[in-house]
Amino acid sequence: MEITQALITAAGESQRRLPLQTLVDRDGTPKTALQILIEEVLQAGIEEIVIVVTPGDIPAFTQAAGAFAPRLRFVEQSHPLGYGHAVWSARESLGNAPFLLLVGDHLYVSSASDRCAKQLISVARSESCAVSAVQATHESKLPLYGAVGGRLEAGRRGLYQVSEILEKPSPTEAEQRLIVPGLRAGHYLCFFGMHVLPPAIITLLGEEIAAANGKWKVHLTNSLAKLAGRERYLALELQGRRYDIGLKYGLLTAQLALALSGKDRDEVLTGLADMLARRDS
Amino acid sequence: MEITQALITAAGESQRRLPLQTLVDRDGTPKTALQILIEEVLQAGIEEIVIVVTPGDIPAFTQAAGAFAPRLRFVEQSHPLGYGHAVWSARESLGNAPFLLLVGDHLYVSSASDRCAKQLISVARSESCAVSAVQATHESKLPLYGAVGGRLEAGRRGLYQVSEILEKPSPTEAEQRLIVPGLRAGHYLCFFGMHVLPPAIITLLGEEIAAANGKWKVHLTNSLAKLAGRERYLALELQGRRYDIGLKYGLLTAQLALALSGKDRDEVLTGLADMLARRDS
Repeated sequence: MEITQALITAAGESQRRLPLQTLVDRDGTPKTALQILIEEVLQAGIEEIVIVVTPGDIPAFTQAAGAFAPRLRFVEQSHPLGYGHAVWSARESLGNAPFLLLVGDHLYVSSASDRCAKQLISVARSESCAVSAVQATHESKLPLYGAVGGRLEAGRRGLYQVSEILEKPSPTEAEQRLIVPGLRAGHYLCFFGMHVLPPAIITLLGEEIAAANGKWKVHLTNSLAKLAGRERYLALELQGRRYDIGLKYGLLTAQLALALSGKDRDEVLTGLADMLARRDS
Repeated sequence: MEITQALITAAGESQRRLPLQTLVDRDGTPKTALQILIEEVLQAGIEEIVIVVTPGDIPAFTQAAGAFAPRLRFVEQSHPLGYGHAVWSARESLGNAPFLLLVGDHLYVSSASDRCAKQLISVARSESCAVSAVQATHESKLPLYGAVGGRLEAGRRGLYQVSEILEKPSPTEAEQRLIVPGLRAGHYLCFFGMHVLPPAIITLLGEEIAAANGKWKVHLTNSLAKLAGRERYLALELQGRRYDIGLKYGLLTAQLALALSGKDRDEVLTGLADMLARRDS
């Protein structure tokens, strides 16, 4: 399966300013969060990038993309009807082909030589099916994420057949339906904010949007659960971590993660030690 | 001397996106850098705030000001002719009254009960003259700041009569002209990015702008030096620190300073310890 296009969603009301924030990347260069995400995608071999934004935000995103702006196509989400609706809004740009889907409010720090998106795309290409990146996540963080249950693919490290998907489950629901053998106690496979999805997801979202008829927000999770019932759908634990920059101190944490795994690690550690040692801080 | 108005400059090309960045303030609330600056100013008893921006930037700044937007008056700097020119651009809004001047790319963290702007304004009110906030700064950072020389006011802690002002002096110049008795070896009084200035500064800037005639950029420093030759002009070491968010890792450093001196100190320290302990970071 060839994956040549990516979709980045950045239209959520609490999310739309986040890709415009500035951080220093692992290579020591200041970039917007959007530029860091675009590089993640391009280094995975993606050629076309579609971004879903709130109407009116295209100039700010074009500016934040800097030199990458010509690589982008924008889609405006006409109404704030949920994450699933945002994805569906891009259906004409995506056409009838699989795509890499990323949320615009996460940054990814790989602990392997390949970046996170490249790790995910490699598996989706070789397995020729839908794959969601997941991260083993402590149950205290379940209110923040979608989570999956499933079983390990025979002989494959960190690759799971998805059987259940729940959006922000309670600890009780998670314990009853999402236990995955082999994870640390109290940990579940939560979404990483990065998926490779087939065009069938657009059809499933369309059905749900028709049923909702504007009365409720359409998440992605329900359609992913339907997809799992119809075709092969895997979850992959990546070598790396996601950082939700929309959380309180999310930008600080992401910036520290980038700096501590990048070329300025020593400089930043020294600065940190200085600040902690200072009596008036 | 009553000071009821503030001027914030944010039109520099490398500076204009910085006030729009988001940080978590000491009170644990996410705010734009602009909102944090506005609160600094309002808590010092200022009523009117004028902001100098690049043409076209008013909508972004209005949005970044949030609930404070009605308190602001904007002035567009027609041409990027230097910091002194930016200040002079606001002459009609400022009228014939003293003003608090702040740069839009610094954040201030007080180590006293009064915030930094309030400390400065208190002294300017009681002394009825121009006062620049300064910070004892290591000579390695002289290339970043303007610096002053002078002598301690008799019986006053941290208050100096300014006799010399140099823009980004070399270590040799500083050693010859800016030694201030009582500072630690290798330290100089560098600008903090915050001044209280009389309307005479606008006249001095106007003369310099006429002389430059668009051929060179007009800094504030020359006019401050002229001011020091004509009227009483003090420098005040504040109880607090400035953080230049335009430096590489400047946002990270400012965010850490806010967090480590704020209500979330323990939470942030715990998160920091976790990140440093993590093997893959």
